[in-house]
Amino acid sequence: MKRFERLFEPRAIAAVGVSEDAARPGSQTVHALLRNGYPGRIYPVNPKYPTYEGMTCYPSVSAIEGEVDVAVIGVPARGVIGVIEDCAKKRVPFVVVPSGGFRESGAEGAARQDRMLAIAREAGMRIVGPNCLGLVNVHKDVYAGFGSITRPPALGKGSVSLVTQSGGFGYSIALACQQAGIGFRNIIATGNEADIDTIEFLDALLEDEGTSIILAYIEGLPNGRALLDVGRRALALGKPLLVWKGGVTEEGARAAATHTANLTGSYDYYRALFRQAGIVEMRELYEAADYVKAFQARKLPAGRRVAVMGGSGGSAIVFADAAEQSGLDFSSFSEETKRRLWKVVPEIGAVHNPVDFTAGYITGANAGRFEAAVTAVLDDAAVDALCINFATTAIPGCLAGAQVLERVVKDTPKPVVVFLSTPAPDSLPVFDAARVPVVPSPVRAARAIAMLASYREARERESDRAAREDVRAASDSPLVARQSFSEADSKAELARMGIAVTRDVLVRSAAEVRFEELTPPLAVKIASADIAHKTEVGGVRLGIRTREELTEAIDGVLSSARTLAPHARIDGVLVSEMVVGGFELLAGAVNDAVFGPVVVVGAGGIYAETFADTACRLAPFGERTAREMIDELRCRAILDGARGRPALDVDAVAHALAALSRYAWANRETIAEIDINPLFALPAGAVAADALIVGKRVTGE
Amino acid sequence: MKRFERLFEPRAIAAVGVSEDAARPGSQTVHALLRNGYPGRIYPVNPKYPTYEGMTCYPSVSAIEGEVDVAVIGVPARGVIGVIEDCAKKRVPFVVVPSGGFRESGAEGAARQDRMLAIAREAGMRIVGPNCLGLVNVHKDVYAGFGSITRPPALGKGSVSLVTQSGGFGYSIALACQQAGIGFRNIIATGNEADIDTIEFLDALLEDEGTSIILAYIEGLPNGRALLDVGRRALALGKPLLVWKGGVTEEGARAAATHTANLTGSYDYYRALFRQAGIVEMRELYEAADYVKAFQARKLPAGRRVAVMGGSGGSAIVFADAAEQSGLDFSSFSEETKRRLWKVVPEIGAVHNPVDFTAGYITGANAGRFEAAVTAVLDDAAVDALCINFATTAIPGCLAGAQVLERVVKDTPKPVVVFLSTPAPDSLPVFDAARVPVVPSPVRAARAIAMLASYREARERESDRAAREDVRAASDSPLVARQSFSEADSKAELARMGIAVTRDVLVRSAAEVRFEELTPPLAVKIASADIAHKTEVGGVRLGIRTREELTEAIDGVLSSARTLAPHARIDGVLVSEMVVGGFELLAGAVNDAVFGPVVVVGAGGIYAETFADTACRLAPFGERTAREMIDELRCRAILDGARGRPALDVDAVAHALAALSRYAWANRETIAEIDINPLFALPAGAVAADALIVGKRVTGE
Repeated sequence: MKRFERLFEPRAIAAVGVSEDAARPGSQTVHALLRNGYPGRIYPVNPKYPTYEGMTCYPSVSAIEGEVDVAVIGVPARGVIGVIEDCAKKRVPFVVVPSGGFRESGAEGAARQDRMLAIAREAGMRIVGPNCLGLVNVHKDVYAGFGSITRPPALGKGSVSLVTQSGGFGYSIALACQQAGIGFRNIIATGNEADIDTIEFLDALLEDEGTSIILAYIEGLPNGRALLDVGRRALALGKPLLVWKGGVTEEGARAAATHTANLTGSYDYYRALFRQAGIVEMRELYEAADYVKAFQARKLPAGRRVAVMGGSGGSAIVFADAAEQSGLDFSSFSEETKRRLWKVVPEIGAVHNPVDFTAGYITGANAGRFEAAVTAVLDDAAVDALCINFATTAIPGCLAGAQVLERVVKDTPKPVVVFLSTPAPDSLPVFDAARVPVVPSPVRAARAIAMLASYREARERESDRAAREDVRAASDSPLVARQSFSEADSKAELARMGIAVTRDVLVRSAAEVRFEELTPPLAVKIASADIAHKTEVGGVRLGIRTREELTEAIDGVLSSARTLAPHARIDGVLVSEMVVGGFELLAGAVNDAVFGPVVVVGAGGIYAETFADTACRLAPFGERTAREMIDELRCRAILDGARGRPALDVDAVAHALAALSRYAWANRETIAEIDINPLFALPAGAVAADALIVGKRVTGE
Repeated sequence: MKRFERLFEPRAIAAVGVSEDAARPGSQTVHALLRNGYPGRIYPVNPKYPTYEGMTCYPSVSAIEGEVDVAVIGVPARGVIGVIEDCAKKRVPFVVVPSGGFRESGAEGAARQDRMLAIAREAGMRIVGPNCLGLVNVHKDVYAGFGSITRPPALGKGSVSLVTQSGGFGYSIALACQQAGIGFRNIIATGNEADIDTIEFLDALLEDEGTSIILAYIEGLPNGRALLDVGRRALALGKPLLVWKGGVTEEGARAAATHTANLTGSYDYYRALFRQAGIVEMRELYEAADYVKAFQARKLPAGRRVAVMGGSGGSAIVFADAAEQSGLDFSSFSEETKRRLWKVVPEIGAVHNPVDFTAGYITGANAGRFEAAVTAVLDDAAVDALCINFATTAIPGCLAGAQVLERVVKDTPKPVVVFLSTPAPDSLPVFDAARVPVVPSPVRAARAIAMLASYREARERESDRAAREDVRAASDSPLVARQSFSEADSKAELARMGIAVTRDVLVRSAAEVRFEELTPPLAVKIASADIAHKTEVGGVRLGIRTREELTEAIDGVLSSARTLAPHARIDGVLVSEMVVGGFELLAGAVNDAVFGPVVVVGAGGIYAETFADTACRLAPFGERTAREMIDELRCRAILDGARGRPALDVDAVAHALAALSRYAWANRETIAEIDINPLFALPAGAVAADALIVGKRVTGE
């Protein structure tokens, strides 16, 4: 934060372009600073006015006698360069450029942006924007911008900071949080990011002690790896980073060469990165508020086992539906817990999970029993988190119930979330004091708990030293220099990575085959570009186990094809090692322009495109991460041996994926794509039956 | 509604079990009636008191001199039967029984419920409950119940009615709507439904002229068909029916005999029913409010082409993400529209869809331009619905913008939805007057528009006469009397339905085969329970086209098997017609206890369970519905000929499904399950390669 101290805590702000028109950006800056009681110096700048709002108005920034930490350049794009030059002369360390009319508006604007950046670089000056709303430091009453972020309602003070690539939508996230009672620290709308970008601001907020939770709205990044790095550091620090990715739909087909690469898109890579870095993804505005409240309670569940209690059976059912869909499990209470509940829950209720303490239970008169019931459930070792459905509890009951929770829940390490429908504003501060997030639906309660459980898992994973050591092993991966690979070359490279491959041999006659070098069963197929349906000309024989069968099969398919397809040009016969009894996966690596090497695994075969059952991770990674990828596949159950089939060797698949990731990382300068299709998972081992490596196109080729 | 007139508009209500304890149900009823100014007669009943709240208190219902339309029996379960008998004596037409302790609590409670029902039936008395919150008629200030529905905050008056099987959670739905400014008519919490059930109340609300939209929370129904019927009538009347289904997860594996039946569960049937009846499913509390507001605007989009405009690029991106995920398309504006927009949108904005009119555009001063921009987009014939992102527009701008919409949007037939983040309560009544729903996120705007589009499609489908005629054709379907079917019988039944089947013949030698009765290509497989891996003993030959090949193949597999598996008992050789070049589906029918015959279609093969890519509909139905099922499958693209494969005969598959549905419906008394696995979709035609029909178990068997 040190490097941005003058930006976030400026002692003096110049507002260039103030005007009688209060709608002008410069005017908005000055009015917001005055309205919010900014304690530093304010310097209005406009050569037309001697004074502005009772203050001296300066003809230029360089005419200001005192030091200026931030200049907000509230003039149209055309006038910006002149002001920038003047700011450089004055040695202003930070400028905020609200105006549009730069890179986003075509060639002239792009040239203007480049010119502006060159002047700033020369002067050691940093730029926020252009084409941005600027920034706010809520605690220091700093409003260095214009538009929604400077307007009422002013945000409350708190420890949440926000970086957004969209001023308008980003501020909607802040307002949704504010309406849920959440306070803020810094808000930055970054605009075109000519100079300071989202990553640099996230970095600064990681260092900022006053920021405990970071929100971000991101549309695109030039370097996805930097977000992985920032996210991992945030995770290690325990500062939750919540990201909304805008623009998740892929625009048309991608120009990738291989099958695997076409199955995924940049949003898949973002989501993989989020998982690898423990970044919490937001998909709705209320999630921002729910998740921040859940984090602010500062309790993470030890596992995914959840309990729910309340007087509304329907609310418990709806919670259970959402809990299952969110990957939570239901706790099984101990006999001791049930005995304790039995004493305080009415006879017509239920003492198993969900606990039904019947309608009208949460009242002042019944506070002791409610307290005993909550305590009994929280004391159960099988409970990692608890949802209490207040639902439509009467207003006085809400307050009494909140007071009970304030007593008993404050010190438990287990997260407790309350679903409440009744408008009972008086009880909300009491729930806050109890560190209990209150949400208006059981579905949202389940999602918030599941989010906390996933975050906790990500923290554990990140603190696992082994995972990082796996990554270092990437430096041991074989390096290649070539840029073009035949299928044979590709399979040879796989073998060098440590991935088992099947062999194929093209022969013209049975005499050419060296049977002892092949592992049966073998397949024999006629090789002819003129024969589309090989089986129909008797051109395929499978399951060959002996030398004699092989000779007979090669002769057979050759003679059958010559008879039934007399005009076909025949190249020979392909003898292939057959893979028997396995399951067809596909795997690959894509060297993405933004994310670098990304490894993909998925269900193979004819359904591959249809179901797009894939998982991906940014390379390099170890076998633990590879197993997580496999666990994400919907076809996972097949690998475990669904429908009486044998279980398949998931370890071997994970080993192959990790090896592939190390290789893709080590060769990221030269290799564009790797396609292993199919990769057979077998009862023992995993074997690649076909592969294609595509080198990077050399510039100018 | 006639039959329930005295229940919903009672002239006199008796509250049995009033007490000094205000928490007693009877007391709550009286207090709610007094507090809300119920204009009819209130009769408190309790032998202990001469008066209650200044009114005469009666020792029993029969002691009341005047007529009683509704008695609320607020006594514990044990005392209910006595009161019921007294009410029967008094000829009370309706009783509400709040108490628990009936069927939900075990054998004694179930006996009590049966006894109560018998008395009521005898006397022609109808029962609401037991174990329920009762009912409220907001317009007539009727509060015949207790708990949350009788408590402040009282609901506002409106035309939305609610039927709920969970009092607590159902009322949460009402409160969520109330907080969004939605008014209510009738609320009924049905409890155990000993007598009047959800369906009968929905039926009554369909007849109620004051109800324009119906909400329901349903956990289970004894007769799913009745909901289909009520839903279809609601759709025909244009009264939207919105249902939340609680309990959507399946409890463990089902005890179904066939593969197809195991791929679906009761929630799938509910969702199929919702689609067939145009019932709108709710999955979150805010959806209730959003969807009701969207319906109250009384505008349905003619199609799925949507436009979005606003000053926040991020909001447009987030809307676009959600629109794509919700199945909406983006309108392409005409040149005329772009010309009109060009005149009123700032130079740095955008005049294509999404329209970017830049931040700060919606102001009082700019009202004329905003009006021109909205009008231009609404006038475009390619626009079916419009989302306007007010996002973080300043408070005065919100009001000015709402006033513009009040002028220009009120008379358009196209739905317009506004996303607004700014807390601007003064503008909300103006948006209401403009019939513009306001939602707090662009995601919710997209979902509301998509919901309206689906509802419109359902209305069109229901009004399609052909669909109903198809259903009538079910009476022409062949009937079967038998209850046990071999595979051969099953395939014969398929043929009787009009579904093409492949043939298999088991022979002991080549001499037995009648080649001329089979359609090549043929497959030959060794038939032996002792040989698990047929290919490994040379026991499989495929692609046989001639009589000579067949003879050679049968001899070959027999001799190969005898050589390589000398100890296996060999039953003979199975000669099967091969299906070539098609795609493997599965289809079937399940005769569900709640829903009756339901037809399922899905992707077949090894991925069937893994991806559970299935669609289902309640039988009987026509080919149009069958095509909709096929369109729902994720494997749909394969049928269209993905990756250079030929397009497959979707018409033939639809024909088979419709025939199956008619047969399953016609034979619903005798047939339990039908499994067609695989059903091959071919370039021309569809053919069942295997089938199994399971008869209903005769009781006592």
